[in-house]
Amino acid sequence: MKTGDSGEFGLISRIAAQVHSHQGVITGIGDDAAVTVLTPDMQLLTSTDMLMEDIHFRRRWHDPYRLGRKSLAVSISDLAAMGAIPRWALLSLAIPADLPPNFITECTHGFLAMAEEYSVTLIGGDTCASRSGLVISVTIMGEQRPELILRRSGARPGDDIWVSGTLGDAALGLKLLDFGFDSAQPRDSAGHTGRSLSGAEGAVSRLLDPTPRVTAGLALAASGLVTSMIDISDGILADFGHIAELSGVGGCLHLDDLPVSDCFRSIASAFNDFPHDLPLSGGEDYELCFTASPGDREKIIGLMKKCGNQATAVGIVSRQPEVTVVRADGSSYTPLSKGFNHLI
Amino acid sequence: MKTGDSGEFGLISRIAAQVHSHQGVITGIGDDAAVTVLTPDMQLLTSTDMLMEDIHFRRRWHDPYRLGRKSLAVSISDLAAMGAIPRWALLSLAIPADLPPNFITECTHGFLAMAEEYSVTLIGGDTCASRSGLVISVTIMGEQRPELILRRSGARPGDDIWVSGTLGDAALGLKLLDFGFDSAQPRDSAGHTGRSLSGAEGAVSRLLDPTPRVTAGLALAASGLVTSMIDISDGILADFGHIAELSGVGGCLHLDDLPVSDCFRSIASAFNDFPHDLPLSGGEDYELCFTASPGDREKIIGLMKKCGNQATAVGIVSRQPEVTVVRADGSSYTPLSKGFNHLI
Repeated sequence: MKTGDSGEFGLISRIAAQVHSHQGVITGIGDDAAVTVLTPDMQLLTSTDMLMEDIHFRRRWHDPYRLGRKSLAVSISDLAAMGAIPRWALLSLAIPADLPPNFITECTHGFLAMAEEYSVTLIGGDTCASRSGLVISVTIMGEQRPELILRRSGARPGDDIWVSGTLGDAALGLKLLDFGFDSAQPRDSAGHTGRSLSGAEGAVSRLLDPTPRVTAGLALAASGLVTSMIDISDGILADFGHIAELSGVGGCLHLDDLPVSDCFRSIASAFNDFPHDLPLSGGEDYELCFTASPGDREKIIGLMKKCGNQATAVGIVSRQPEVTVVRADGSSYTPLSKGFNHLI
Repeated sequence: MKTGDSGEFGLISRIAAQVHSHQGVITGIGDDAAVTVLTPDMQLLTSTDMLMEDIHFRRRWHDPYRLGRKSLAVSISDLAAMGAIPRWALLSLAIPADLPPNFITECTHGFLAMAEEYSVTLIGGDTCASRSGLVISVTIMGEQRPELILRRSGARPGDDIWVSGTLGDAALGLKLLDFGFDSAQPRDSAGHTGRSLSGAEGAVSRLLDPTPRVTAGLALAASGLVTSMIDISDGILADFGHIAELSGVGGCLHLDDLPVSDCFRSIASAFNDFPHDLPLSGGEDYELCFTASPGDREKIIGLMKKCGNQATAVGIVSRQPEVTVVRADGSSYTPLSKGFNHLI
């Protein structure tokens, strides 16, 4: 984070003063480059994500604190999907003139709170002006022993297809916001405690404040049981598709086995014409999709339970390079959409 | 670089197909995170820069090829300033709908050509839509042995202040473009070969296609002679100011010793009311500013000559924590501007 850019001295100094330094940081914010050191025998894992206003987030839905948290969470999720330990982050902000004065302060508070939760140190970045919307660009770096790193490319025909947690909540949250649900209200008003509303709040929270599955990712990597892994950002249909493509295999997903939350189920049952394939292609779940031998089912379930998470087998890897979806009665299902396109 | 984002499969595949892999790359574009390995006993150096349309560049001035080159060059320059070896880069693009079809193709060609020149491998990134201008966010990673890394913080009272190359050309180029000079014309038209015009082209080229001083940075690091270093992106006055601040010292810059190119001199002499402090605070020079003991002057000059560069002593580090500028006659000079604010 160069202190000269756009004269944002004050902002960068304030951010730097709030940073807690964790493992491996030699020189953090303030020089031309940050200097860090890897744990011996570990390899470096790097990923980057750019969040654009009105493409990935809307100011009227995303409060700045949770937006800051999410901007780091989605990058950490990429490292979780590799079974890696998150270590260091870079944060670049392009700031429009019409942003409320405290927006960036609250956004960086959120970012740094998420960083603390995963022992990630903010080591640099960039700040500049934006002629239009807010742009948040995050780079995450982590490390892992080479033999534990999990890739998209190891799935074998006959493997189970697994998913952590529940699917479709975030996509449901997006629908609710789109229908006019006020994301800020339930937290501030004591009057809004009804069951369906708190369910709605839960779904919206999955969208606005996702949890990267780092503990599960590390446990799965350490287990040696997993043949391939990815995080679900575009819906399991599209993201398992990436595993299939890079592994040179296909697979069959069982639509009715896709795990959904109680909140999802209750809201879904209250509406006619509900888009029932949100768990398949809704997006922004940030759960892990992975593959493992069917002989290891019990171990996988036990391992994930120990992580405070759940694992559900949702399909089978096939030799045929094609991803299909079937209903519980064995009938073929044609997805409404292939994947998630954020807000656009 | 995740292949799912915004459905930019084709673009990412085309970029990935053009990447040449250099040292340390285990897994490049195509998984949730890239995997790289550091050379034993080296530390990791990381920097990031965001370039915004109409803040850092204008489409009518910056042709896409040179824009791509520059977007990486400015990040490589940060590693040069640390005396580090550039290794890997991440490239994120937010693409507006009105961008001409070949713009991103040519821009990534330029980026990859610059990467090849410095043996940098593009290992990932992100692509998405932009509601307004083009956004280019680049993260660069490099490595160096800990004892060779140069920081802003080591300058000592009595040290010489040095600068590589010449200053002010890029800022002059910006003025010329602002006055209506056509950056594309001289390359395409055989009629434009006059001395002053090719001088103008040289200045514009310093702005649009800067050269990171990697060879000089590495040689200076290896020499053990340098006490502090920074790259000059905001003008030597502001950037030596960062060295002074982080070293707890001050300094005196000799305005009339600041090295300028023949082209700069000839254009400057042709205009009345020319802004003579462009070499002081014009910005975007991407030269190195560094400090060293006055006993090492000959060694520094010889070392830089070997790199095909030049070094000029332009001032003295002082104990007093203040940066001043003097003329050749010893009179004090009050700068017109403290530093460069890009296009705004």
